[in-house]
Amino acid sequence: MVLDINNLKKKITVIGAGYMGSAITYPLTDNGFEVNLVGTWLDNEIIKSSKNGYHPKLKKPLQDKVSCYYWEDMPEAVNDCDIIFIGVLSEGFVNVFKQVLDALNDNKVFFKLTKGIVTFENQILRATQAAYKMLVKKFPKQEIYWATIGGPVKAFELSEKIPTATIYALSENMSTKLVFSFSTDYYPVTITGDIAGVEVSSAFKNVYSIAIGICDGLFKPTREGNYHNLNAFLFNQACLEMSKIAKAAGGIQQTVFDIAGIGDFYAASISGRNRRYGEYVGLGEKPDKIYQKMFDEGEVAEGYKALELGIKWVESIGLNVKNDLPLLETLYNIVFKFQKPLEQINLFVRNMKKRWQGLKI
Amino acid sequence: MVLDINNLKKKITVIGAGYMGSAITYPLTDNGFEVNLVGTWLDNEIIKSSKNGYHPKLKKPLQDKVSCYYWEDMPEAVNDCDIIFIGVLSEGFVNVFKQVLDALNDNKVFFKLTKGIVTFENQILRATQAAYKMLVKKFPKQEIYWATIGGPVKAFELSEKIPTATIYALSENMSTKLVFSFSTDYYPVTITGDIAGVEVSSAFKNVYSIAIGICDGLFKPTREGNYHNLNAFLFNQACLEMSKIAKAAGGIQQTVFDIAGIGDFYAASISGRNRRYGEYVGLGEKPDKIYQKMFDEGEVAEGYKALELGIKWVESIGLNVKNDLPLLETLYNIVFKFQKPLEQINLFVRNMKKRWQGLKI
Repeated sequence: MVLDINNLKKKITVIGAGYMGSAITYPLTDNGFEVNLVGTWLDNEIIKSSKNGYHPKLKKPLQDKVSCYYWEDMPEAVNDCDIIFIGVLSEGFVNVFKQVLDALNDNKVFFKLTKGIVTFENQILRATQAAYKMLVKKFPKQEIYWATIGGPVKAFELSEKIPTATIYALSENMSTKLVFSFSTDYYPVTITGDIAGVEVSSAFKNVYSIAIGICDGLFKPTREGNYHNLNAFLFNQACLEMSKIAKAAGGIQQTVFDIAGIGDFYAASISGRNRRYGEYVGLGEKPDKIYQKMFDEGEVAEGYKALELGIKWVESIGLNVKNDLPLLETLYNIVFKFQKPLEQINLFVRNMKKRWQGLKI
Repeated sequence: MVLDINNLKKKITVIGAGYMGSAITYPLTDNGFEVNLVGTWLDNEIIKSSKNGYHPKLKKPLQDKVSCYYWEDMPEAVNDCDIIFIGVLSEGFVNVFKQVLDALNDNKVFFKLTKGIVTFENQILRATQAAYKMLVKKFPKQEIYWATIGGPVKAFELSEKIPTATIYALSENMSTKLVFSFSTDYYPVTITGDIAGVEVSSAFKNVYSIAIGICDGLFKPTREGNYHNLNAFLFNQACLEMSKIAKAAGGIQQTVFDIAGIGDFYAASISGRNRRYGEYVGLGEKPDKIYQKMFDEGEVAEGYKALELGIKWVESIGLNVKNDLPLLETLYNIVFKFQKPLEQINLFVRNMKKRWQGLKI
């Protein structure tokens, strides 16, 4: 049954007061929604500062109509609204979502900003799949209203109201009218039914932008800007591999060739934490050590864990990494098998040459 | 009849001693071909310097087995081989190709590096279409062996042997074995039959990278790196519009979502003359004056003329610019109607919002 929005409170609870959870409060409040912003136990300093009028990550105050909550007050916040946005990092998603569900007195309408592949009950799953399993258990036989959000939405830029396009992948019973009521002139929203395609794009663009960063790290010091042919080759190959993964996941290839895929991946390839992580690796840092160092500094390169889980997950949905996803294999060899980046990238190019001219039959 | 390569001389003449014509000599000679490199009348200084061991644009010597020719010796050079590459800028293509054909004693195998849309006998055409008309007239009832080359091939990088992927779109009678004989470990070659799709991609990526540059010019000074959501939105929209153009031109949409399209466009969006031209426009330079200034300095932003011709050409193949290609229209309004860049970009975003939620019916 399609969601009836007539009786919905004009109030939204956002879970996660890091970059993304906090940034989404700007278009939501500009559209007249009140927002309860709930920090996790890792966000206490952010909530404290935000209550005093300054969000330390976004480097400005939150807008009027945003009320900040510590994690201990999460049950009050989530039961005070009909709509919940989840904006935590993928690493914490299952744990946080479980606690939110435990706290809920009744069903809600859910929007997921978190990207990624997660481990749930010893299975590797898309985060939406894990969430559905939890929701079905908590609210058996009830409608599940759900959207998975994608597109090139760097949080700081959204909070600055730089024009930011986004795509909401909707469960079939979702109200499009509700979704479009989040849209503003600086945050145009488009919709799709392809949850799998959007989720694959969001997760794997973080993975593949590590490859762009590795290329930057390998060549920027000696080649200045003169290695973009290779960057472009890797960018293109990543798009093709993401489209294969989307299809194998039951999604639509064309979703990857639109704002959730190439749009988001473009933004991640010219800036962002995963590209930067890759650059460090290309410069010769140890892949595990530099991930941990960034993590400790609060800069989580989500593509690292997504690569580790993703390479197993793609096999579970019927792909063969060696044959179908040579760039993903190259990345895994560099990041988790500690192979030399330059050798691996050159090997990738040589193997593509052979594939392209039928020398690998 | 498929090209018989057994009797072909292992010698190639390249027309145009600018960036691209000169750069292609590196993989060709590395594959054992002798190369006659012919400068046009604009390349006299380059030829003079190259004969003395230093190519002034590539900033190094050409490889052994490259012989340099002035334009006056073009007839000797082109009749001394069986294979001709054309690497001049699109502005000069028709004129140069006509003179080459006039000089030929017999038919050859042709490879076109030139990108773009041209004017030929008062018609706007893809450069390959114009070339075919000339070839049919010169060699009536003979086989025409042809390839249109695309992909992210920045010439300087190719000459430095940075790994560079390329795609050759072949006439049905071309020898794939010949084409793959140009491939090296740093220049992997892939093939397609979609000449229209590759040519549209090559020409329009120059046009659309002006939009990326305009965005850079508008926001880089005040926003540092924090406007990439918008860049990504424009990048994505450009890909979608190029795929529509490719289809209307009789090509295949998927060609745009591969190395000739998103690959080449990615490289053009992170660097290159057309992006730089757009950046000047975004910074407030007059679009016509700054094009001319760059032109006078030897930096030709080919996307400028391709936009001027292209906007008429897309209508001639059945597209409606206003409805089908809103970003192309935005670019035209800025570059040729002198509308304010920031206003036009914001208007584009607002209009996309309306399209996406059915407010424009």
